[in-house]
Amino acid sequence: MALIQCSFFAQTLGLNVGMNVVIPERSYGIGVEAGGAPSGDKYPVLYLLHGLSDDHSIWLRRTSVERYAAEYGIAVVMPEVHRSFYTNMKNGLDYWTFVSEELPHVAQSLFPISGKREDNFAAGLSMGGYGAMKLGLRAPEKFAAVASLSGAMDILAFDHEGSPLADKEYKWIFGSKEEAAGSDDDLFALSERAAAAGVSLPKLYQCCGTEDFLYAQNVRFRDHVRSLGIALDYEEGPGDHNWGYWDAHIQRVLAWLPLRRGNV
Amino acid sequence: MALIQCSFFAQTLGLNVGMNVVIPERSYGIGVEAGGAPSGDKYPVLYLLHGLSDDHSIWLRRTSVERYAAEYGIAVVMPEVHRSFYTNMKNGLDYWTFVSEELPHVAQSLFPISGKREDNFAAGLSMGGYGAMKLGLRAPEKFAAVASLSGAMDILAFDHEGSPLADKEYKWIFGSKEEAAGSDDDLFALSERAAAAGVSLPKLYQCCGTEDFLYAQNVRFRDHVRSLGIALDYEEGPGDHNWGYWDAHIQRVLAWLPLRRGNV
Amino acid sequence: MALIQCSFFAQTLGLNVGMNVVIPERSYGIGVEAGGAPSGDKYPVLYLLHGLSDDHSIWLRRTSVERYAAEYGIAVVMPEVHRSFYTNMKNGLDYWTFVSEELPHVAQSLFPISGKREDNFAAGLSMGGYGAMKLGLRAPEKFAAVASLSGAMDILAFDHEGSPLADKEYKWIFGSKEEAAGSDDDLFALSERAAAAGVSLPKLYQCCGTEDFLYAQNVRFRDHVRSLGIALDYEEGPGDHNWGYWDAHIQRVLAWLPLRRGNV
Amino acid sequence: MALIQCSFFAQTLGLNVGMNVVIPERSYGIGVEAGGAPSGDKYPVLYLLHGLSDDHSIWLRRTSVERYAAEYGIAVVMPEVHRSFYTNMKNGLDYWTFVSEELPHVAQSLFPISGKREDNFAAGLSMGGYGAMKLGLRAPEKFAAVASLSGAMDILAFDHEGSPLADKEYKWIFGSKEEAAGSDDDLFALSERAAAAGVSLPKLYQCCGTEDFLYAQNVRFRDHVRSLGIALDYEEGPGDHNWGYWDAHIQRVLAWLPLRRGNV
Repeated sequence: MALIQCSFFAQTLGLNVGMNVVIPERSYGIGVEAGGAPSGDKYPVLYLLHGLSDDHSIWLRRTSVERYAAEYGIAVVMPEVHRSFYTNMKNGLDYWTFVSEELPHVAQSLFPISGKREDNFAAGLSMGGYGAMKLGLRAPEKFAAVASLSGAMDILAFDHEGSPLADKEYKWIFGSKEEAAGSDDDLFALSERAAAAGVSLPKLYQCCGTEDFLYAQNVRFRDHVRSLGIALDYEEGPGDHNWGYWDAHIQRVLAWLPLRRGNV
Repeated sequence: MALIQCSFFAQTLGLNVGMNVVIPERSYGIGVEAGGAPSGDKYPVLYLLHGLSDDHSIWLRRTSVERYAAEYGIAVVMPEVHRSFYTNMKNGLDYWTFVSEELPHVAQSLFPISGKREDNFAAGLSMGGYGAMKLGLRAPEKFAAVASLSGAMDILAFDHEGSPLADKEYKWIFGSKEEAAGSDDDLFALSERAAAAGVSLPKLYQCCGTEDFLYAQNVRFRDHVRSLGIALDYEEGPGDHNWGYWDAHIQRVLAWLPLRRGNV
Repeated sequence: MALIQCSFFAQTLGLNVGMNVVIPERSYGIGVEAGGAPSGDKYPVLYLLHGLSDDHSIWLRRTSVERYAAEYGIAVVMPEVHRSFYTNMKNGLDYWTFVSEELPHVAQSLFPISGKREDNFAAGLSMGGYGAMKLGLRAPEKFAAVASLSGAMDILAFDHEGSPLADKEYKWIFGSKEEAAGSDDDLFALSERAAAAGVSLPKLYQCCGTEDFLYAQNVRFRDHVRSLGIALDYEEGPGDHNWGYWDAHIQRVLAWLPLRRGNV
Repeated sequence: MALIQCSFFAQTLGLNVGMNVVIPERSYGIGVEAGGAPSGDKYPVLYLLHGLSDDHSIWLRRTSVERYAAEYGIAVVMPEVHRSFYTNMKNGLDYWTFVSEELPHVAQSLFPISGKREDNFAAGLSMGGYGAMKLGLRAPEKFAAVASLSGAMDILAFDHEGSPLADKEYKWIFGSKEEAAGSDDDLFALSERAAAAGVSLPKLYQCCGTEDFLYAQNVRFRDHVRSLGIALDYEEGPGDHNWGYWDAHIQRVLAWLPLRRGNV
């Protein structure tokens, strides 16, 4: 893959931000098995989201995702959203608008990646797993599949289940619990509304380690969406909230993506 | 200069952030005039701060500061603080603590730069000019000289003089005007207290273009500190709020810095 | 401009190499005057070449070229070719093929830049000035204009005019003087053949400081191409072989480029 | 780890080159298990070398080495040497002098890494495995342990065992087979001389996959050094010449390194 480290002005945020991108190449140096060229001009693309304390560089550094993606001939776009929970913050910048609208627009204008729904995917870990699932439920017209790894699925349970956020930071992001509940940042409510409206959702994937402090809320989310009749590919097994788990499971996500034949 | 692009975990922010650093080298390729090696083991260092919409990469990209600094044998550390006004935000992260405490600590632990007051300097443009002046007035024991270029000097005048901040963003950062007035983020109040306490301040430099929308508040700040008996090197002249001005004036700042003989 | 730092596998070289690229943006942070969006989908592009001891990062670091290019709405691609003189080395890799064929191909496949002759330009300093002029004379069908700043124009004069190359390195690159003379790496011979064949050459620009150790060979090259009836825009004036000169003159080059109306 | 991407002027090469470095941090974001702080001021350091077609960025991108190294509290320095075989090339630059002398000097002057033999280690894959073993045999006073992964151990066997180098490139690097045989670039000869002189060698580690095209020469090298009475930790098993193998085995190398207690 060509590795691209990009710094650009995000109009939505009024801020210069970083973005790492890997793009399939026609040929490689030693030791890489590469998928074929894309059927058309544009590559399928995975938007790969970071966790609370991380930035756009973290997936490349903590895993071998660039190498794994090469096998599938898929581009990967890794944005940076600070500690925003991919949210239009109650007291802060509009990161949801950024990640769901401006980012794909900018990435498609700079790089040879497809804008078609069937070529667009999202995944992430922890806060980024929440972000990816939110993209799938709230912008289902843009993504063919989304995957949450060890996601922070239940933003209403943060206070009593080992929250990554202090109370005051929760308020900057989501406002009060009352404001959060049922809002467009509540994955449980989003999935209910999607089910009720009969929206054509992307393929959904969810995994979590059974030792993860977020395990209980992952089980609840799984049960919730399944009770709504929404299809969900779910995996659990031994594992904690760490990069060994995510390095292993991002490979499972890539294998699970419904890439079109011509692309691989 | 060796160019160093660094990504590290800022404990104060709970967030991975970027930092660009340039360090003098013993030899150079063609076309660079270099200052000598440092007298001791550690280089003097200029903390160079970005403006509201920028990041840690901007000074390197919009000016030739790496080349200019080479002449003086001085390292330059360029952090990233998002749109924080170098402030412990009322609704947001503790960027002041980050820039005034953690950043120098991390930079000194990773790179061969001096921690001595007489070797430490700060400068910045716009929001970063404000930040540099705040470092000088509020952490005077750490810096031998600070310089503001086209600084946002009067945070109380933002609403009626062409503010870079919308009202709500102002509140996230500073709280209300009443909270901001007289606080440790108010440069006018900080300078009064420093004068009253007889603090030994760093050398201060301030410049602004006469066409700059921040010109009036720069004049007020100049008059204020001088009325307090604080020494200030002040320059004004034709110029607007743009990078042509800052590329020219960062050279004046470097020439003005009280670098010790052995270092150049 | 979006700043893109790219690492990719150059098939011609069998080697991973770096490339820096700046691409116009729709909006900017403070302090930048930007040219308009492109008339079509693709930006005009300047291939900007480094000198003997430099790499793909040097133009961004030693000048403000990203800022200057923003005014014109033009992308800039900065490759890396080590100490190769943009040559298929007699004892070394095929850098000419890389820079003249693979590089534009890769850049056009990764980024939204035009492949049309009228939108393609090249410039460089010292060894890169030689490289840009060689692109113009030897691949005239690809470039609408090329510019040499303080170029190493006469590879036959290196031994008696202050050569940047030791004898043995000269041989690795060009072979013997006898091999070099009249070859496709000899700008004097290339210009003769282009004139004889009546090739439609790009616009040519050449500048050199009168204090530059390469001044004499720049004068000879100017006289030579003019004696052949080839149009050449030539500038000289006080100046040495350094980045102050190149920061000033890359601005003159950008202003001189025959950009099509719709692009600015 | 702090990730540092550095561009500096290598005096030995007359060329600006890249270097990636990771340095342990005092604290980390989520999902990383970190080793303790160093006992002294300086971190132990692993020089980690790339293969023929790669550059300084490749280990970070193709493996999770930054994460693995965090567990041990060890810094990692990843230089770039193009296709040089870490050799003072017969027709090319002095990459051996660069990697064995200038690189440690520059890295120690820029970063908080130890210069003591007991804290210095080298490893690499393929061409880099050869390079690491050469550092161990030819500069044994500088390294406490070196490791070759799938190394190109026998530079005399390149022509009949699936050479990565064409004949002409072999000559640029090593000269003729006759010149190479017994030279200071021949690992077999180096190990003989070290054994004869009774040099105190670093700990040596070697591994190779049994499906690797370099397997036969790895077996020969193992047998050779053991026949000389030199201690060698050797591992083989199923595996080919690819990054899956190297991602797995760099973890084994890190676990094998004789790090001093205080450091972990």
